[in-house]
Amino acid sequence: MKIGITGASGFLGSYTLQYLSKLSKYELRALARTALPQELDSLSNVQWLYGDLSSPMTCQDFIDGLDCIIHLAHTHTPLSSNRDLVSDASLNIIPTLNLLQTIRESGKVPRFIYASSGGAIYQYNPHQRPYQESDLCIPNSSYGVQKLCAEAYLRLAADKQWLTAVSLRISNPYGVLLPPERLQGLIGVCLHQLRNQKPIRIYGNPDNVRDYIHLEDMCRAIEVAIQAETSFEVVNIGSGVGYSVNQVLDLLEQLIGKPLVKEYWQPPGNPQELVSWTVLDITKAKEVLDWQPHITLEQGLAKLCREELNLK
Amino acid sequence: MKIGITGASGFLGSYTLQYLSKLSKYELRALARTALPQELDSLSNVQWLYGDLSSPMTCQDFIDGLDCIIHLAHTHTPLSSNRDLVSDASLNIIPTLNLLQTIRESGKVPRFIYASSGGAIYQYNPHQRPYQESDLCIPNSSYGVQKLCAEAYLRLAADKQWLTAVSLRISNPYGVLLPPERLQGLIGVCLHQLRNQKPIRIYGNPDNVRDYIHLEDMCRAIEVAIQAETSFEVVNIGSGVGYSVNQVLDLLEQLIGKPLVKEYWQPPGNPQELVSWTVLDITKAKEVLDWQPHITLEQGLAKLCREELNLK
Repeated sequence: MKIGITGASGFLGSYTLQYLSKLSKYELRALARTALPQELDSLSNVQWLYGDLSSPMTCQDFIDGLDCIIHLAHTHTPLSSNRDLVSDASLNIIPTLNLLQTIRESGKVPRFIYASSGGAIYQYNPHQRPYQESDLCIPNSSYGVQKLCAEAYLRLAADKQWLTAVSLRISNPYGVLLPPERLQGLIGVCLHQLRNQKPIRIYGNPDNVRDYIHLEDMCRAIEVAIQAETSFEVVNIGSGVGYSVNQVLDLLEQLIGKPLVKEYWQPPGNPQELVSWTVLDITKAKEVLDWQPHITLEQGLAKLCREELNLK
Repeated sequence: MKIGITGASGFLGSYTLQYLSKLSKYELRALARTALPQELDSLSNVQWLYGDLSSPMTCQDFIDGLDCIIHLAHTHTPLSSNRDLVSDASLNIIPTLNLLQTIRESGKVPRFIYASSGGAIYQYNPHQRPYQESDLCIPNSSYGVQKLCAEAYLRLAADKQWLTAVSLRISNPYGVLLPPERLQGLIGVCLHQLRNQKPIRIYGNPDNVRDYIHLEDMCRAIEVAIQAETSFEVVNIGSGVGYSVNQVLDLLEQLIGKPLVKEYWQPPGNPQELVSWTVLDITKAKEVLDWQPHITLEQGLAKLCREELNLK
């Protein structure tokens, strides 16, 4: 099976590429806009393609001969997406539609796996009930609108039999270091700061609860979604368990055995932020994909500290 | 109050412009891309502006000094929208976001009325129950996805207090002649063909049921939506009553007193089309806008036949 990955040098993409490469059973094509990161250079069964999905020619070159497309490329985070709505739509839905249009014109019917969002699309949830896929979606960022819009087009494309698709509504993935400029990924940024002996800046309400999923569990979900015989499904991929920011930091303090240096930061003009609670109900993933996470947050954090901070 | 109308020379726009102009209580600005149709030329209290919302400069010129924006501009019909997804998104969501971004940067908080769709966004409905605004939306055309996407951005914009908005999910409007090339608007096209003594081509299943709303009733809904003191609402605007294509044609035959010359046309490769049934529940419009339609389909058709076919 020949699999193509968009956004292959990004946060989700580079981990997914390495995960699938290690399995040694797929032919892989990796699409990236930017230069190749060092750790990806050594992967043997990967064909690299440089280009931008805004170009239909790049889309044609990319999908040629593929049985499956894993579409992970996305520009902007929930926070940055609202700054310029026009650019957010131009950089996200237009390239995705270029890709769909190219698939449609090819006449093949590939499998399509899409990285949607479990954290940025559902309605505000004062009752602290885990979100189900059938719940009302009211995104409060352009990022969330773009993810939902792509899902709607994938459903349409599956209905018209241009492809079969699974849209994975992934919660908060972690498992690698992240630069703090990203303003995304609490755990990755914390570890990055710890390794560089810098204070940890905490944005928003530290009682906010999120659902953290290890990248390895996410990659297993992608792999089972590739194999599943479904025409179109939207599936939550998370742990099903919520941790507040403070709880994550407490766990980290226990692991490193000393207090973290923290800086609490509130966005100007919005001091009274309500506690948000975003945890996914993962029943459907078990039923439809026979998937469930294997790595608890405690295990995943300990693994990351061992790998990145040389803790035993 | 100063009101701007986009798509002012279009199907909905030209009727709305004339309706509001006759009320003589609003200052009106009309935006159009194309040359001015004759019947709009004579409107006295209308300032015309030519341009395209793809240009931020046009957006700036258009919104300058407006208290309310009625956004009716839309390219493509449900049928034509699926031909090229990229162009459909580029021609619809990008201009709409340009407009929103310009409003946001202006720092004013105008009223925004959006012409969404009552017919192209809800999930297929085998139980023949009128659609409520809270029903699941699963559009089967790019047109429907674009309308939903615009709604999501308007909700976001209202939430961020850039504007207040009402999204009107309008059913099947009628009340003027339509050229048959549009492939939209059964009644308008029928009358056009009758007046030109040409046969009437019927697309799809003639048992399909739609909810027809007279343009004058739609314009009253727009006017009450302008005045309503709501931050963001999505409201169905229809008659609440369903008529099949065959029932509409029967009504027309009764009115003109002779049989119509009909040609039934099925799209190639899709002979077994299921009957679709699209009728709106208009309870919320009564509750939120204190609006309900005044013109039954029988009355509206009779009016149109009098005006356009010189029948008494």
